[in-house]
Amino acid sequence: MPRFEPKNPDYRKVATATFDRQPAMRTLGISIARIEPGEVDLSMPYSLDWTQQNGFVHAGIITAGLDSACGIAAFTLMPSGSDILTVEFKTNLLAPAKGERFSFRAHVVKPGRTLTVCEARAFAETNGVESLIATMTGTLMALAPRGQDPRTHLA
Amino acid sequence: MPRFEPKNPDYRKVATATFDRQPAMRTLGISIARIEPGEVDLSMPYSLDWTQQNGFVHAGIITAGLDSACGIAAFTLMPSGSDILTVEFKTNLLAPAKGERFSFRAHVVKPGRTLTVCEARAFAETNGVESLIATMTGTLMALAPRGQDPRTHLA
Amino acid sequence: MPRFEPKNPDYRKVATATFDRQPAMRTLGISIARIEPGEVDLSMPYSLDWTQQNGFVHAGIITAGLDSACGIAAFTLMPSGSDILTVEFKTNLLAPAKGERFSFRAHVVKPGRTLTVCEARAFAETNGVESLIATMTGTLMALAPRGQDPRTHLA
Amino acid sequence: MPRFEPKNPDYRKVATATFDRQPAMRTLGISIARIEPGEVDLSMPYSLDWTQQNGFVHAGIITAGLDSACGIAAFTLMPSGSDILTVEFKTNLLAPAKGERFSFRAHVVKPGRTLTVCEARAFAETNGVESLIATMTGTLMALAPRGQDPRTHLA
Repeated sequence: MPRFEPKNPDYRKVATATFDRQPAMRTLGISIARIEPGEVDLSMPYSLDWTQQNGFVHAGIITAGLDSACGIAAFTLMPSGSDILTVEFKTNLLAPAKGERFSFRAHVVKPGRTLTVCEARAFAETNGVESLIATMTGTLMALAPRGQDPRTHLA
Repeated sequence: MPRFEPKNPDYRKVATATFDRQPAMRTLGISIARIEPGEVDLSMPYSLDWTQQNGFVHAGIITAGLDSACGIAAFTLMPSGSDILTVEFKTNLLAPAKGERFSFRAHVVKPGRTLTVCEARAFAETNGVESLIATMTGTLMALAPRGQDPRTHLA
Repeated sequence: MPRFEPKNPDYRKVATATFDRQPAMRTLGISIARIEPGEVDLSMPYSLDWTQQNGFVHAGIITAGLDSACGIAAFTLMPSGSDILTVEFKTNLLAPAKGERFSFRAHVVKPGRTLTVCEARAFAETNGVESLIATMTGTLMALAPRGQDPRTHLA
Repeated sequence: MPRFEPKNPDYRKVATATFDRQPAMRTLGISIARIEPGEVDLSMPYSLDWTQQNGFVHAGIITAGLDSACGIAAFTLMPSGSDILTVEFKTNLLAPAKGERFSFRAHVVKPGRTLTVCEARAFAETNGVESLIATMTGTLMALAPRGQDPRTHLA
């Protein structure tokens, strides 16, 4: 995995603040476990509230954790004043999402001025043992936050 | 769009019951708006609880709606006694998820004994006007529910 | 499917010329069957040269046709002087690629100044009967052709 | 990366023979550079025949190499007598495909009785220096070769 040089020396503070402004992360109980330039680990406890018909966490919720991990990982490498939006992602579900906790670990594969490509993996933890349950590849887009309506990012 | 013949005459009842056994759908306030053989529309109200840093609904939550729509659409064509798991999906986010309500509309592209491929679209509704905000292509897998551990579906 | 207004009145000429400058299309025997604003159909004859171990056309070759169809469809809506690169795509193989001819039909789902999202379908034709064999969703990026190294599109 | 135990002691011979029965690989000049249980490296020389309008190798041809690498990697872990088909894949193009040679390196992420998930990376080599140009995540399906029509794998 390549090592990256952050363009914004305050990357940790800014990325954490952006994460903290996401009500969805708070609602899901997701927190930042580790943050480095181009790398982020998130952590989420199991909750019955997010399960599908078999008691496994819903694939969309696992995707929410993977996508936020990718977004924050990409965001750590962006210049000061940027905002970020997800362009697209692809998730493979490898095993049912059952466990006491879940980790979402993302890293930047290719940083870019406009587009950044990230990969992420989701792990379930049961009795201290982790197993891989899902993968994501995602494309993120940097946006200037002021004077530009994010609705127009594809317009 | 092709028309499909359901293998299970009770498809509507069984698919609705499977949907109702998903706590995540209840938590997100998602309900079935329409269900036909191979086609499902789901509906979700906007809630600040599911938003990211700009007040748009989080891409993972939009994905949860799209994935459930695909799963139920595929499920309507499966024989009695089947269970279903998502193998993988890909989501393109076309516009920020802002609106009063969201619709997730899925249809089966290719049904199969083992694998079924679905496409879905997410729409945001504001003042009665709908706009396309996301697309999904997903692969679903049919499982026999009894005597088979779903954990082994990839094993 | 939405109707699009081309920004470049010469879109047909320019898109056709760009297609004609692709040696890979010539090598594969792929030609333009139809071109409209935001929509393109390509056609390819079967050749044993492109097959995998079962005599079906290789998934990568089917993908080449789908990707070119998406690229040209997106290109028809771009302003004069643009160049285009593929950011990413996802292909689902629905049935083995066996037939006398193959059609690749793409349309723009969401045009954009920077990014355009397209969908495409591949069909195999045997004895005048067509069947769906693959789908693609792809993201394309507009580039200014002069004074900008396409290698930097992600840099 | 996990280490895998091949089910078929002749995996190398069988996987190589399957690769050799792919006319498309011969046409593209792709050869096996390395083969281990669950891991395959393929190699392809640059040829103008496979380029798009800017002299870069066409994304579909890069995808053909990535897909074959994934298929052979998955195939090394399958029991004797299996055949294999690609269900779906997703490719991210990270940099233009220009170079003297290209490498396609795949490994199995999750082997399965029915479905196997692989990841692959494409590299371009220029003057002995390699750079990452594309990634793939793909889902492959094991098929019994006799008494089962591969056309029915999704039926």
